[in-house]
Amino acid sequence: MNHKPHVVVLGGGFGGLACCKALAGAEVEVTLIDKQNHHLFQPLLYQVATAGLSMPEIAQPLRSILRPHEGFTVLMDEATGIDLAARRVELRGQGALAYDFLVIALGAVTSYFGHPEWAAHAPGLKSLEDAARIRREALLAFEHAETCTDPEERRRLMTLVVIGGGPTGVEMAGALAELAKVVLKRDFRRINPAQARILLVEASAKILDKFDDPLPEKARRQLEALGVEVKTSTRVQDIRAGEVHLQAVGGGATEVIPAACIVWGAGVMAHPITRTLGVPLDRAGRIQVEPDCTLPGHPEVFAIGDICALKDANGVQVPGVSPAALQMGAHAAACIRDDLMHAGALPHPPFTYWDKGSMATIGRSAAITQVAGWKLSGFVAWVLWLFVHLVFLIGFRNRLAVLLQWAYAYLRYKRGARIITGTS
Amino acid sequence: MNHKPHVVVLGGGFGGLACCKALAGAEVEVTLIDKQNHHLFQPLLYQVATAGLSMPEIAQPLRSILRPHEGFTVLMDEATGIDLAARRVELRGQGALAYDFLVIALGAVTSYFGHPEWAAHAPGLKSLEDAARIRREALLAFEHAETCTDPEERRRLMTLVVIGGGPTGVEMAGALAELAKVVLKRDFRRINPAQARILLVEASAKILDKFDDPLPEKARRQLEALGVEVKTSTRVQDIRAGEVHLQAVGGGATEVIPAACIVWGAGVMAHPITRTLGVPLDRAGRIQVEPDCTLPGHPEVFAIGDICALKDANGVQVPGVSPAALQMGAHAAACIRDDLMHAGALPHPPFTYWDKGSMATIGRSAAITQVAGWKLSGFVAWVLWLFVHLVFLIGFRNRLAVLLQWAYAYLRYKRGARIITGTS
Repeated sequence: MNHKPHVVVLGGGFGGLACCKALAGAEVEVTLIDKQNHHLFQPLLYQVATAGLSMPEIAQPLRSILRPHEGFTVLMDEATGIDLAARRVELRGQGALAYDFLVIALGAVTSYFGHPEWAAHAPGLKSLEDAARIRREALLAFEHAETCTDPEERRRLMTLVVIGGGPTGVEMAGALAELAKVVLKRDFRRINPAQARILLVEASAKILDKFDDPLPEKARRQLEALGVEVKTSTRVQDIRAGEVHLQAVGGGATEVIPAACIVWGAGVMAHPITRTLGVPLDRAGRIQVEPDCTLPGHPEVFAIGDICALKDANGVQVPGVSPAALQMGAHAAACIRDDLMHAGALPHPPFTYWDKGSMATIGRSAAITQVAGWKLSGFVAWVLWLFVHLVFLIGFRNRLAVLLQWAYAYLRYKRGARIITGTS
Repeated sequence: MNHKPHVVVLGGGFGGLACCKALAGAEVEVTLIDKQNHHLFQPLLYQVATAGLSMPEIAQPLRSILRPHEGFTVLMDEATGIDLAARRVELRGQGALAYDFLVIALGAVTSYFGHPEWAAHAPGLKSLEDAARIRREALLAFEHAETCTDPEERRRLMTLVVIGGGPTGVEMAGALAELAKVVLKRDFRRINPAQARILLVEASAKILDKFDDPLPEKARRQLEALGVEVKTSTRVQDIRAGEVHLQAVGGGATEVIPAACIVWGAGVMAHPITRTLGVPLDRAGRIQVEPDCTLPGHPEVFAIGDICALKDANGVQVPGVSPAALQMGAHAAACIRDDLMHAGALPHPPFTYWDKGSMATIGRSAAITQVAGWKLSGFVAWVLWLFVHLVFLIGFRNRLAVLLQWAYAYLRYKRGARIITGTS
């Protein structure tokens, strides 16, 4: 054939970008499609939501990232459907695009477990827009509390609720507590932001239940030391404008918590495009891929990252975290290179997940970390967390600026990014 | 009297903030009211609009700025009316606020010269929201041009029009030209952003007509060297969605320019609250203040900055620029201190404007500067411009980060802040 094979990558997150980078120099044309113009460093999104970092510090234009490589095209567009038989992706903006290989790396979206109406009152934390909305709501709540004369409404304005005791919820609750109790403490005259009530709600019996004991309990104590009220074994019954309805697991009376800022960190599901493919999905809508991350019967179509469900070659359920997406992206690229070299005659090797450990940070100088049997908590875990995140930020234009800003914030406990914009 | 006199300052721009700072330590209670939570460094707003700087780099929370001083209250609220006889300000959020002294420093808003309907199609450049909208429209235009197959629509998407040849319009046009022709040049595969058409439209016979000859002509040549098409003696007849209608001054046929991004830098008028006061205004709605910046018959009410019109003690019409606002803020504070010391028995001294010169920047390394009879243009003027802006940024948390980012951008010609957010 005369033309180079065409690889279409859907999604410029960790998985899609890792795949593109690993295809650099291969004899292929690559088209990366994303509805945003930027790659987002999601692990630090909660820092934007709590005014610790500004948006460009955790986002980078996809075009800049891929500019050094020849043969890459970036299109800002959205895939609306995939025709697996015809090997074609339907795009919202510009018709259809034919592919020889397809990499589906569209990730996950916030899931309200059958209550889409809650989205209006409790944003998730998946995009810069989500983060901007949470930041605006939280900062405006304190501004309005300062000018509010009704004690009950003032109490509501100073109540912030985070739903979900996984890493996202724990990090949000810790950062919100620090924002209120340390950063904003001396900014107001009529209210004392240190009296703000920060609630973390979790349905299970413990937070961070993917971590081994005793880390969940240590994390709970670190959160409580920051002033976060941790409510485990508590279910969300309803979310309405400005209030959350809670109930103890196992029944009991409904408790209504009026709150000015409600953050949903309780669940995600696969990008809804999976439901259009006619392939087996798990309960969260994720594609149940073959051991090599391809779709059953389609060795030319890969699904990687949070959009797929896979038990790897060692029988480990691959978790929905960024290191797994990065590894799967590199794996898909290696399979495509193999296919090109051997004209698809050899079977793909199965994907093997290398667990580099898990970490969750709790406020400014505490964290829990679990690496290959080691369990760390407190300040040492936090330093490790900082180090890992700065290393991953490498490639970002701003790593020096981010480091300087963190050092400055650490020394002075200021948050310069707490600018309120937008109209709502 | 038992309570300290209450000074209410409306607006946290250059004038209001300078007044607050100059009142630090005085025996007064000060309440600063602004509908935003931040002070905005407006001279660099065009850098945010063209993705050179991110928002927190030119904005700082008012609470942080005033935190070191005792006796200051910041309220995020909006003045809806002023009762001069009763000495009371009406607020949107929380009723009325009594004052002993009032400083009106609400500045100017974009004026479309009797065509408010143009606002929907051509944003001004007064707020962070304006800047974010221009950045989104400009960046999206190139993204859509990359995926567009119709040559005519593609030409429209790659046309950007700036209306108004004053410093704002000149700086915007220069920065947009650099964004298209230098920064984005190698980012796309199907379009060549260097072919973008950037138009600067001005009704007068020359741009920057407040500057002495030969600076306007030098600025024009510097702009043209960047690839900006400068259309002087040209009137805007109409602005509709995605197109501008132009006509030569003195008549002639209408020229319709289809354009994806239209920026209005042609005019401002005083904040509309001035029309509710029953005091003499000029044509732009500015309060015609007494020589001491007070309202006629109200020595306790000052109007400073862009909201007032004044010929100073030397007969100079004070221009609507930030140094004038800073000087008027300090003057108002000095008058208030005098009144307190002498129980208002002495008349206020008249305000005298100290003209420190004017400058306008044109792209990355050119500018024109006019200081006390000296006229500079080109690179030397640009270095002076950079120096003055960095000095004024002092007090901003980010001056080091801004300096680093500028140095980096200067060396690498990248713009990291070109992240598209928002839904429209």
